[in-house]
Amino acid sequence: MRADANSDAPGNHPPVIENETGASPVIFVCEHASNAMPEPWGNLGLTPEQTRAHIAWDPGALGLARGLAQRLDATLIHATVSRLIYDCNRAPDMPGAMPLRSEVHDIPGNAQIDANARLARTRAVYLPWANALHNLIATRIAQGRRPTIITIHSFTPVFHGKPRSVEFGIIHDADPQLAQAILTAARAQGRLNAQLNEPYSAADDVTHTLRLHATPYGLPNAMLELRNDLIADSAAEAAMADSLAPVLAAALGAKDLAA
Amino acid sequence: MRADANSDAPGNHPPVIENETGASPVIFVCEHASNAMPEPWGNLGLTPEQTRAHIAWDPGALGLARGLAQRLDATLIHATVSRLIYDCNRAPDMPGAMPLRSEVHDIPGNAQIDANARLARTRAVYLPWANALHNLIATRIAQGRRPTIITIHSFTPVFHGKPRSVEFGIIHDADPQLAQAILTAARAQGRLNAQLNEPYSAADDVTHTLRLHATPYGLPNAMLELRNDLIADSAAEAAMADSLAPVLAAALGAKDLAA
Repeated sequence: MRADANSDAPGNHPPVIENETGASPVIFVCEHASNAMPEPWGNLGLTPEQTRAHIAWDPGALGLARGLAQRLDATLIHATVSRLIYDCNRAPDMPGAMPLRSEVHDIPGNAQIDANARLARTRAVYLPWANALHNLIATRIAQGRRPTIITIHSFTPVFHGKPRSVEFGIIHDADPQLAQAILTAARAQGRLNAQLNEPYSAADDVTHTLRLHATPYGLPNAMLELRNDLIADSAAEAAMADSLAPVLAAALGAKDLAA
Repeated sequence: MRADANSDAPGNHPPVIENETGASPVIFVCEHASNAMPEPWGNLGLTPEQTRAHIAWDPGALGLARGLAQRLDATLIHATVSRLIYDCNRAPDMPGAMPLRSEVHDIPGNAQIDANARLARTRAVYLPWANALHNLIATRIAQGRRPTIITIHSFTPVFHGKPRSVEFGIIHDADPQLAQAILTAARAQGRLNAQLNEPYSAADDVTHTLRLHATPYGLPNAMLELRNDLIADSAAEAAMADSLAPVLAAALGAKDLAA
């Protein structure tokens, strides 16, 4: 047979790419941008409150990522389906890809998921996502513009009942260089409680995107986590983008990571 | 814009997948299967003799890979365009992706290649290749059948005037486990001069496929190199497949790498 990698087949949910011709070397990646739960999956048996909560997406992450992309003239790629349908930052056999439970919430629509349903979600969400992101990166490399990959996430201020004091987490995969430069720039600015590899680290299997798309090409990369109470509405997202854009610019310049 | 990763667009050259439903965990990968030089590139200014030589492809590799896939009931994916148009085992910015020179031969059609032409070849050959291979691997993972990735290559018995005594090279990327098991099984059989990381190694940047597609998912993987005078016609390819199939089966069994 001919290999067919058509990501726009009916029922597929490719990501959206914004400002594809941006001048910055940075590509911002937002795997948990959306809480959309389209048919045939629907709401997975969750309440409207649950589908608005952090278990379904990273609240504020898309607005922040978009604000940063605009301020740095960078490209943004973001997923269009809830992480509870398929978490694009997880390989298809990782428990978190189609989770049975998230924090204290059971996900009823994922409880009975069988092999065919797992395969269908992988084909509809993960493959179009991975192809589009890889195509974006490889195209830049072919153009002689090696990109810098920065993923944007948010985390909940209280997890399993425990408050988190970290406000800005900077997480690295195999190459810590960019993450350390961002940490240094954030601490020099002094506005946020910034921590390396908090509230998660690569050991928690949260760096799938970096591992698959940045590390093999030797691209500078980092994963950023903002506490979601600090980006709770569009005004707060814009203020955080104003605050973080110069931090990232300083980090990119400091390490000569810009193109 | 909507991300579009359609690899079957006109002018694109996706790979071919054979025996996609094979029972073995092994996926054989043959990046240098073809010496085809389709339009608009044509023969790149090479003589017919040069386009048949090892600089344009890995002679015998496809026949051997197909023979191994049949004997092990494994899947095979192979490129359909010469490595001199685009070498699918190279990232788009590696010199070998669209080489100016190969061994002692200048490649006239690659001498003046500009940025647009590099981008066009990447889009026409490398992106469809990478998407199809990733889709094949991720689909298997979603089905709960983590694949083993084995790439099949051939090398010339004389390189830059120097004869090579190695007959069977087994090359690894970050994880040496499968390569070492194959070496042990080949030496136990005793038919070939088998060597680890000869005539090339990962340090020569020859493990791009393994690094991009196997290592990030933690899949068992190895690159096999056969000296091409040992697989010079279809009878020799079949005899080599008869000889190597039990070596691979033993290695897969010995290390419990089978599914």
